[in-house]
Amino acid sequence: MASPPSSSTLSPPVVPMDLHVSNRRKLLDSLRHHFADSSRPSHGFVLLQGGEEQTRYCTDHIELFRQESYFTYLFGVREPGFYGAIDISTGKSILFAPRLPADYAVWLGEIKPLSYFQESYMVDLVYYVDELKETLENLFEEKEKKPLLFLLHGLNTDSNNYSKPAKFEGMENFEIDLTTLHPILTECRVLKTEQELAIIQYANDVSSEAHIQVMRNAKVGMKEYQLESIFLHHIYMYGGCRHCSYTCICATGHNSSVLHYGHAAAPNDKILEDGDMALMDMGAEYSFYGSDITCSFPINGKFTKDQTIIYNGLERPTEPGLRSLRTVRELQNGMVITVEPGCYFIEALLKPASENPATAKFFNHEKLEKFKKFGGVRIESDVCVTADGCRNMTNCPRETWEIEAVMAGAPWPLKQ
Amino acid sequence: MASPPSSSTLSPPVVPMDLHVSNRRKLLDSLRHHFADSSRPSHGFVLLQGGEEQTRYCTDHIELFRQESYFTYLFGVREPGFYGAIDISTGKSILFAPRLPADYAVWLGEIKPLSYFQESYMVDLVYYVDELKETLENLFEEKEKKPLLFLLHGLNTDSNNYSKPAKFEGMENFEIDLTTLHPILTECRVLKTEQELAIIQYANDVSSEAHIQVMRNAKVGMKEYQLESIFLHHIYMYGGCRHCSYTCICATGHNSSVLHYGHAAAPNDKILEDGDMALMDMGAEYSFYGSDITCSFPINGKFTKDQTIIYNGLERPTEPGLRSLRTVRELQNGMVITVEPGCYFIEALLKPASENPATAKFFNHEKLEKFKKFGGVRIESDVCVTADGCRNMTNCPRETWEIEAVMAGAPWPLKQ
Repeated sequence: MASPPSSSTLSPPVVPMDLHVSNRRKLLDSLRHHFADSSRPSHGFVLLQGGEEQTRYCTDHIELFRQESYFTYLFGVREPGFYGAIDISTGKSILFAPRLPADYAVWLGEIKPLSYFQESYMVDLVYYVDELKETLENLFEEKEKKPLLFLLHGLNTDSNNYSKPAKFEGMENFEIDLTTLHPILTECRVLKTEQELAIIQYANDVSSEAHIQVMRNAKVGMKEYQLESIFLHHIYMYGGCRHCSYTCICATGHNSSVLHYGHAAAPNDKILEDGDMALMDMGAEYSFYGSDITCSFPINGKFTKDQTIIYNGLERPTEPGLRSLRTVRELQNGMVITVEPGCYFIEALLKPASENPATAKFFNHEKLEKFKKFGGVRIESDVCVTADGCRNMTNCPRETWEIEAVMAGAPWPLKQ
Repeated sequence: MASPPSSSTLSPPVVPMDLHVSNRRKLLDSLRHHFADSSRPSHGFVLLQGGEEQTRYCTDHIELFRQESYFTYLFGVREPGFYGAIDISTGKSILFAPRLPADYAVWLGEIKPLSYFQESYMVDLVYYVDELKETLENLFEEKEKKPLLFLLHGLNTDSNNYSKPAKFEGMENFEIDLTTLHPILTECRVLKTEQELAIIQYANDVSSEAHIQVMRNAKVGMKEYQLESIFLHHIYMYGGCRHCSYTCICATGHNSSVLHYGHAAAPNDKILEDGDMALMDMGAEYSFYGSDITCSFPINGKFTKDQTIIYNGLERPTEPGLRSLRTVRELQNGMVITVEPGCYFIEALLKPASENPATAKFFNHEKLEKFKKFGGVRIESDVCVTADGCRNMTNCPRETWEIEAVMAGAPWPLKQ
């Protein structure tokens, strides 16, 4: 097996803050359309509260802060403790920065002047958080009325959690709208701009390269978490990605039938065995935009006949390429979705179904017995929907022979 | 420069659950002593609630779960959603496991029977969380009284946060004591057993080796976060450490004057320059026990005269070795503390002090000007207090010539 390359062709790009300026403009356009359609006046403020740093339980261990995604989408702010507003009538953007105590400079770094945030984040105005109430009151044109705030409140249908509307002292002096913003802003986020797509593509490039690095270095006798470590190192060292989109799923053998393996109660700690399939579901995040990629491959570098049957069973006709999607809405140009065919032998589902007389007759019990400990296989790519089809953003070996060649040391993409 | 070794002599040890059995026994002894001294009856239950998984804001992104430390200390449980109790009169330990929904098996893994937790965590009894109230009522001997619960409530003086006492449905049927447990259990944790010291020593071994790996690979032109990535990879790949004790501080040049650099608003993103000193404060955690180590070294591998002056200014007489400690209590055999002499040129402190007529006269302004952009230097080791002195648990090159030799490729420890 050839020695794996220890470097990379990746070069972390500078993300232009203009990306978030465009996002704000898009939201403004959508809101104004909405108001025009409903014959309501276009005024008031969109107001979002950014995330706060969290400590671990009662301790002073501070969890690495990661900004809230709606807030990031509009303002790109990486620091905790901010609020952001958009004046709907003028289109002006306003950031509110936390007023930091003097000893911040000793422990956490230079206390930046407000002008720094104004320039870095390309907003029109910056004030301190403790000036929020007064500032919004002053900016509101109709002095005889309470200023109107559009806050973020709505259900995340993946988690069943609600987003938390902004809170601040003196809120009672404002009129609050909790229903308008969430669906409109969420819809803005669904259709990506070219600038957003470029970052998602970069996150895919980083992750694709890291997946190949993992394939090349996987060896019988290693632990699953060592594959996670190789991935994490590659995306950070060469890709500049400090965060992943989700906890790495590094499942081998039987574990690969557990769809979200890898969490604290099943922490990627099995030893890789000869004959195991690996299912690696790992995705880097760059500048708040994520990737979500799964590669499945045989640990020893060669697909068995059975592994080939299951793996190739996932292949789909290539034309429209969108057959296996789970989505409840029409696909539109600019959406990014995952395509993730999978085949899993899940004992908790197969056992009752194969024992139940009503369903038992549909099983080939002999074959099933053979694959009982197989685990599962998943091939997952990120796909950008275009006007006339789609573009695959993920660049990993997918055919069994491509995987075998890359694992044997061939450069990717393979030479024809 | 010699090629850095790509492997390690580390071998992640299996942590015996007996360690937590000993911790429980120690708490029981302390509690019984306390009750004997205060002539109170030794009965009732210690009851702790373990941590719960957290999602990120409104999303379904689950943060990697890390158990609460008091709970871990007594029960060693790595899964979320547990409660743990100790019957003070009988000494029996009881775990309460969450009753998982059937689809857990599909998404997150096998649903373990209660007997699995009883064996793995070496406790006397295991029930489901929804049986907690009934179980404790049944176990309490004095049927005519409300059962007595000792819950964890007290101030963490590092964070100024309070630990959260256990909560469960039906609590109103119990008598609650919120003052006894916290100081006694905290005191148990301060003095480490031999088993605990072995794990802390391993976390130190892992981190010491990873620090050396970072030193050897640091090069002008890299980014600070690449040093973080090398550290994280080494501790996970070779040391089996998925967590750090704290966010890595990878400060170079001027940034090294910021004591807790490296957080999201100052994310280790400077380019390493020729002539920079690096201050690397990074510590691996293994099986819930941490290390906390800082190495300072010149990025280009050679100390300048000025760097040598500042670095050697931190050296202390070696005899008692405990001169520079910040601690408000008497040191005792079995404590583990950090020793971290440092010298920082912090503009936010130096500027006002050198401009204030009352303090300006104490400064050599010419020299100060020279070191204004120096940043800082810290040498931090973990030290175990023994009956007649201390034992250094950290094994990194500390003398300037040792650092230069290791950075030039010499194996560590150096041959005489």
